[in-house]
Amino acid sequence: MRLLRLFIIIAVLALVPHTAQAEDGYDLWLRYQPVGQQWRDRYASAATQIVAAGDSPTIRAAASELSRGLGGMLGRGVATASAVTRDGAVLFGTPATSAAIAALDLPLAPLGDEGYLIRSVDVDGHRATVIAANSDIGVLYGAFRFLKLMQTRQPIDGLDISDAPKLKLRVLDHWDNLDRHVERGYAGLSLWDWFTLPQWHNPRYTDYARANASIGINGAVLNNVNAQAEILTPRYLDKVAALADIFRPYGIKVYLSVKFSAPIALGGLKTADPLDPKVRAWWQAKADQIYARVPDFGGFLVKANSEGQPGPQDYHRTHADGANMLAAALKPHGGVVMWRAFVYSQHDSEDRAKQAYNEFKPLDGKFADNVLVQVKNGPIDFQPREPFHPLFGAMPKTPLMLELQVTKEYLGFNTHLAYLGTMWAETLDADTHAHGPGTTVARLIENGKGTGLTGIAGVANIGNDRNWTGSEFDQANWYAFGRLAWNPQASAEHIARDWTRMTWSERPQVVDTITAMMMRSREAVVDYMTPLGLAHQMATGHHHGPGPWVSNLGRPEWNPVYYNRADGNGIGFDRTASGSDAIAQYAPPVAAEFGSLKTVPDKYLLWFHHVPWTYRMKSGETLWDALIEHYDRGVQAVAGLQRDWASLAPFIDKRRFDEETAFLEIQHQDALWWRNASIAYFQSKSQLPLPAGHAEPPHDLDYYEAIKTPYAPGQ
Amino acid sequence: MRLLRLFIIIAVLALVPHTAQAEDGYDLWLRYQPVGQQWRDRYASAATQIVAAGDSPTIRAAASELSRGLGGMLGRGVATASAVTRDGAVLFGTPATSAAIAALDLPLAPLGDEGYLIRSVDVDGHRATVIAANSDIGVLYGAFRFLKLMQTRQPIDGLDISDAPKLKLRVLDHWDNLDRHVERGYAGLSLWDWFTLPQWHNPRYTDYARANASIGINGAVLNNVNAQAEILTPRYLDKVAALADIFRPYGIKVYLSVKFSAPIALGGLKTADPLDPKVRAWWQAKADQIYARVPDFGGFLVKANSEGQPGPQDYHRTHADGANMLAAALKPHGGVVMWRAFVYSQHDSEDRAKQAYNEFKPLDGKFADNVLVQVKNGPIDFQPREPFHPLFGAMPKTPLMLELQVTKEYLGFNTHLAYLGTMWAETLDADTHAHGPGTTVARLIENGKGTGLTGIAGVANIGNDRNWTGSEFDQANWYAFGRLAWNPQASAEHIARDWTRMTWSERPQVVDTITAMMMRSREAVVDYMTPLGLAHQMATGHHHGPGPWVSNLGRPEWNPVYYNRADGNGIGFDRTASGSDAIAQYAPPVAAEFGSLKTVPDKYLLWFHHVPWTYRMKSGETLWDALIEHYDRGVQAVAGLQRDWASLAPFIDKRRFDEETAFLEIQHQDALWWRNASIAYFQSKSQLPLPAGHAEPPHDLDYYEAIKTPYAPGQ
Repeated sequence: MRLLRLFIIIAVLALVPHTAQAEDGYDLWLRYQPVGQQWRDRYASAATQIVAAGDSPTIRAAASELSRGLGGMLGRGVATASAVTRDGAVLFGTPATSAAIAALDLPLAPLGDEGYLIRSVDVDGHRATVIAANSDIGVLYGAFRFLKLMQTRQPIDGLDISDAPKLKLRVLDHWDNLDRHVERGYAGLSLWDWFTLPQWHNPRYTDYARANASIGINGAVLNNVNAQAEILTPRYLDKVAALADIFRPYGIKVYLSVKFSAPIALGGLKTADPLDPKVRAWWQAKADQIYARVPDFGGFLVKANSEGQPGPQDYHRTHADGANMLAAALKPHGGVVMWRAFVYSQHDSEDRAKQAYNEFKPLDGKFADNVLVQVKNGPIDFQPREPFHPLFGAMPKTPLMLELQVTKEYLGFNTHLAYLGTMWAETLDADTHAHGPGTTVARLIENGKGTGLTGIAGVANIGNDRNWTGSEFDQANWYAFGRLAWNPQASAEHIARDWTRMTWSERPQVVDTITAMMMRSREAVVDYMTPLGLAHQMATGHHHGPGPWVSNLGRPEWNPVYYNRADGNGIGFDRTASGSDAIAQYAPPVAAEFGSLKTVPDKYLLWFHHVPWTYRMKSGETLWDALIEHYDRGVQAVAGLQRDWASLAPFIDKRRFDEETAFLEIQHQDALWWRNASIAYFQSKSQLPLPAGHAEPPHDLDYYEAIKTPYAPGQ
Repeated sequence: MRLLRLFIIIAVLALVPHTAQAEDGYDLWLRYQPVGQQWRDRYASAATQIVAAGDSPTIRAAASELSRGLGGMLGRGVATASAVTRDGAVLFGTPATSAAIAALDLPLAPLGDEGYLIRSVDVDGHRATVIAANSDIGVLYGAFRFLKLMQTRQPIDGLDISDAPKLKLRVLDHWDNLDRHVERGYAGLSLWDWFTLPQWHNPRYTDYARANASIGINGAVLNNVNAQAEILTPRYLDKVAALADIFRPYGIKVYLSVKFSAPIALGGLKTADPLDPKVRAWWQAKADQIYARVPDFGGFLVKANSEGQPGPQDYHRTHADGANMLAAALKPHGGVVMWRAFVYSQHDSEDRAKQAYNEFKPLDGKFADNVLVQVKNGPIDFQPREPFHPLFGAMPKTPLMLELQVTKEYLGFNTHLAYLGTMWAETLDADTHAHGPGTTVARLIENGKGTGLTGIAGVANIGNDRNWTGSEFDQANWYAFGRLAWNPQASAEHIARDWTRMTWSERPQVVDTITAMMMRSREAVVDYMTPLGLAHQMATGHHHGPGPWVSNLGRPEWNPVYYNRADGNGIGFDRTASGSDAIAQYAPPVAAEFGSLKTVPDKYLLWFHHVPWTYRMKSGETLWDALIEHYDRGVQAVAGLQRDWASLAPFIDKRRFDEETAFLEIQHQDALWWRNASIAYFQSKSQLPLPAGHAEPPHDLDYYEAIKTPYAPGQ
């Protein structure tokens, strides 16, 4: 009876509602909620004890995660043990730290430094699951994979899984300023509270590292590419070191963006000329100073001679001269330089889409072997849709690192639902034909050109908002970036489905509905913002809302009219031989396809061609009618997202449901705004009536031009 | 046995560690953790059912809070009922909504609109506690008071409590910009996410309102006194209305800061002259527009002709002309104007400490009866210590609203532990002698001068950081502000003790230790920053760290040297008749005390007097030696806080303990920095050796002058 009384007390305590317990997104896809009964029994017998082989910080992190995850999903604590002593053990480690694992003689060699193997085995006469790797970090990745099997309700018996990342550098770029403002951030302030570092180690830093490790991200550039020189001062380097120490067990290296003129700003030198011996010595000493604090420091990310940033061209040197100077400073320590190809001249009147290629292609073969050139997915700037960047395939001797934007600068910030997995897959799957058919962007970036260096970068969408990314659905983009970084050929739909299962529910109706919503969401944004190959139609500065009429900015290529080129005759940017001939930067089969009106896909029509309003589409309708239909299709798609979401009300926790409901309402209003404003402007050029069944914009063009949103976030 | 099995399952579930469950400060002083066994039985019998009389949103909020609080503290759900049916009922409502309460014939008349009564009574033959008031909001305040009794481990039987606020307007001023930057904010971004309003009602808005209601705060100015005109556009007013709707059940009115030139910026007028009929009409229409959305809108807060803000003086009108014009627009709707007296001229060479008095005293009696003049606690600007503002007592016909700064702009931001309750009590208890002895500031602000308007404002320290205020201990300042706003004569120590019990632990050792730490914390800051009446010695702009040498700013009164006046002979600002004669602005007994070296308290010495370095203090030691001793006393006091805090390690949850440990380490480093830099500078003037036993600063003055912290928060 005393036992019963104790149970009653504990049971009563368990029933008391915990305050502030509502799901609020903090746990991301690592929620570890209890599985349904049908899975619990099955999983419980295959996860009866946690056996860590080794006690490095990374192995302890794996043990802690397994304990948390299994405990949460099974609804009971799982015992830890130092050896397999019962059926259902989960044994994890490396052959070097565990005789039991070594004795299994597992085929680990092909898995490299970061891969892992998960296999159902017998250990000392007991059924067990072994998670093994050549390195501790591989073990941690394997532990997360094992947990994901359960999170996505897969069997965990009879396992024989092995996996390894296809890219070496899988990096989040945080465009975070030292005052914690995040450029293009829509999720609050920077996670990095520089003011209380290095003393205060907010547990959130560890949770950030856990989330990254769970999807294989292994690097973080801590500060904005528009860099502040002070990040390289000892005061800040001490703070950087504190973060590096926290991240290290999770396999995450820190990198820094550096300002090319730092030797002047910090070092008191008169020049930052990369060939100047004093400049080179300054950077070498700076690298030494960094590595004294952070022995596994990753390296530098550089935005140079781009949008006003200083760079080697200020001294009539090349990008290669600049990159190689920094590379030489990092080389003794094993660091790399990620040199961005996002450049366009302040003076060049050349088509902006052509400039990066023109500047970088001649430098192929001139970069040191610890330099990667980092190239955005498309030739302009993270638009809702762009064709792949022509540099992919054009620098056969240089490792190219793909730069994606996870934060939705041009896709509706945090309040528009837009799953970017499909957008990135579109780029990764694009066939450059650079070395014959099938030379996809994915395969190109998997090729280190003999350096062993490959990589991918995502401009992070993470801030200090409680849910990390400013909305629940933007967590999916962080997740998908990690998954595609690990395997650029992965399926965007599979990723969406996994994320949905882990984030929302195990219920099939929910998983199917949300996955389908995600899969069509980005096309909706393209339709209501920039259909048929239009680009950069966003309002000035903050890029929130439509501004197709904007023509008053200082440089031509900052203006939406530069991109749409709408006039009385037609619309679109002629990039064929009769225009800027940007098309010639692509391999001949691609140039031929995109360059011909007969073969160019509708989605790139206005990117490459200027056509009359009355141009006949392949469908037979006029361009004008098709354009209007795309705008309305986008608005209707958002209404569809709203309906689908509403149908899930019974199955989603209230707080997260309410938030997304509100955001979809905002998205629908914004989609209508985009549609109406764009049509009002283009109609002022085309002077054509709307096709039947499509409503006139409710206001005149002046009304839309007068809308101002000066305090939109992220600028 | 089936029952037993069920209990076992639930018990096991209860033992599973919840993820993200660590105390992180989100719950503030409303944690409602289970009480110890010795209290549980006692409380449980006096809280067996929750009986709401009425169903207004406010009564529902009270019911919800009682349910949450009782459930949490008692460790079990407490039943709700529509009538008292058992011993231990908690019945709450107004006589108007409850015949049972009316029948008790309680003495509610003296309690006014917001007071409450809590009494142990018999209802229908059952022991019950009644929480009654004349209004629903009084009932809610009473419910929080009842919960506080339990949170602070007071008896809840034999109760007979009645209470009512002494001030009518108890307002938090949020200096929040529309881009969510908080001026002088050290707790993240603004709570108000304007971008997702009015659609998304973050539950945090409700928790903010709950916290305020729990301490009686009944107003919130949503935006910065350095106002952006756009807050008055319909787009933003819709967002304001959404917040007002959320706050209304908690008795919180919204107010807005307005830019005096808004009729020009928004209305297209050529002038903002307060006597211009078009300007008056514009404001009237604007007020009508606001009240159409927010029927109980509180009114306007105005910073005019101060630090570059526009105001009536731009048109050669007085502050009264400006205030009365706005008051006329609000009057039909019942709104008020809070007109700030924080002014100093851009051109006047007069002692800054005198200017507000000089400008406002002549206007006494000229303000409309729905205007309050809002006066900071001291004549400069929220320094660690200032004498009370001479306007208190100088405007017998004008309701004066006291403005305090809850955010620690000048007291070490969020990382220094400084309990401000003692500082505010020092002002509130100060005897102005304006109408004879005992005319304290507290009594003056409790006097509405016939208008019925009284008030107090606190510049909020709240942001979107998880713990609301950037540190656990800064929550105490929010709390203390509310408590002193309710009763300006309350004891700062009692408030600290209550807060500690609710926030940290019921354990007496913890309560005594933390209360004592808090009570001496502000004096420590005064000692290491600005001892003996020094003021405004902070570094430029962000006010982080020492800058006693700064003399290069555009206006004299922006420079620390203006305030310390240190030279080869001595230090201090002569405000006696031989100097600026600011002393003459005080009532004669005060002027006599502060004006004489014989009677001036040490703490105000250098505020009112310039004295030689070798001046003999009342203690017999020289000023120079006393100054050094104060700096060192401040540093040692912080070391003492660290020791005391460390002693609590066994009793405080790890995350909150670790955070405060880190912050105290930062505070100690900063205190040393302040001490060393200040001494290095003043020694460069005095040329005197340090007294025995006090260490020389480890670096020379150049070193301290070279320290720059450009990205300190809050600027």
